[in-house]
Amino acid sequence: MPEPVTGPVTGPAGRTGRRAGDSGTREAILAASRKRFAEHGYDGATIRGIAADAGVDPALVHHFYGTKERLFAAAMRLPVVPGELLGAALAAGPANPGESMGEHLVRTVLQAWEVHEIRDVFVGLIRSASTSTQATTMLREFVTEAIVSRLSAVARPGAGADPAGPRYRASLVASQVVGLGLTRYVLGLEPLAAADLDALVAAVGPTVDRYLTGDLG
Amino acid sequence: MPEPVTGPVTGPAGRTGRRAGDSGTREAILAASRKRFAEHGYDGATIRGIAADAGVDPALVHHFYGTKERLFAAAMRLPVVPGELLGAALAAGPANPGESMGEHLVRTVLQAWEVHEIRDVFVGLIRSASTSTQATTMLREFVTEAIVSRLSAVARPGAGADPAGPRYRASLVASQVVGLGLTRYVLGLEPLAAADLDALVAAVGPTVDRYLTGDLG
Repeated sequence: MPEPVTGPVTGPAGRTGRRAGDSGTREAILAASRKRFAEHGYDGATIRGIAADAGVDPALVHHFYGTKERLFAAAMRLPVVPGELLGAALAAGPANPGESMGEHLVRTVLQAWEVHEIRDVFVGLIRSASTSTQATTMLREFVTEAIVSRLSAVARPGAGADPAGPRYRASLVASQVVGLGLTRYVLGLEPLAAADLDALVAAVGPTVDRYLTGDLG
Repeated sequence: MPEPVTGPVTGPAGRTGRRAGDSGTREAILAASRKRFAEHGYDGATIRGIAADAGVDPALVHHFYGTKERLFAAAMRLPVVPGELLGAALAAGPANPGESMGEHLVRTVLQAWEVHEIRDVFVGLIRSASTSTQATTMLREFVTEAIVSRLSAVARPGAGADPAGPRYRASLVASQVVGLGLTRYVLGLEPLAAADLDALVAAVGPTVDRYLTGDLG
């Protein structure tokens, strides 16, 4: 299971306890992050720049959040760090006997989403992405870095001028998974919204498998 | 091709010409529609109620827009009437030799979306749906009525207690098609956003076929 993104990622011995002022400092870092990510995109925002805006040392941002990816997840109030969740699922491989990688990935994602607040998280992301083209750029760069790059590592390599390269395959997977999340959790489209997790894994898993490694025609 | 949703649907002989006051009346009807749809949902809003709010006779609303579905499309500034486009595509069946129904549907949808303003249309819908739960209800009811109901008519019937009934199959199709639209046109996720239409038809068409009529495990 992914670690929560709110706690300190690492804590040197003797410094892991909560200190007075911690939560105010964290809030300042997260506010500076949201501003920087929105203005500079995910790729363009730096921990150094965010630290400067928050008036803290970059080492403190690293101490609290570890990586830019975890900082972004915390700033956007995501319940998990998507890329870490995906990376762990890809590294571990299917846990259930007879399950394919696609089924395993769909199960992992749906399990992570089966929390009460996921609708609000999605709506928050969507609302921020639809406010400006910069915010859309931010979300696109994050999805590219956290999801497409990692998924393309397990996709079938393209041969020669094959347009169905691994990143194309990974982006097709993203289209299905994003659509599943939005129709099930935000739109609440029935009977999809009420469907059993195992049924969805069986229905959508083979789509993911085909996009990753199958014949795309 | 679908008719534009801005012009009169039908016009009695001698009354099809533009009259003074038409555009103001139309605007009043569309404004009343947006308010009624948002407050009462798609199912709950009636042409009679909208006409009352706009201070016009219900017959005039019918004269201008024909059906509730077309009125909704015009009020939401959709470039096509989704259910009419889908209904026509299902009735006509695949136009290209060797193309499956799934490929035909993906091609039809993508061709309708290959207009410059589609990103703004999606963003407008998403933004309105994410502002309140009533607005989400409105969009869900519209997608259910315009898309899921029509698609389920061509989906494989469920047997006995089979959870994979035709409406479930249709909602799975919606999850993939909605996700494709959002990642390609709103998020602009590459290489999906730049992908060739024929390549996408070949990649996503078989997914739609399987969801509609295949074995879902």
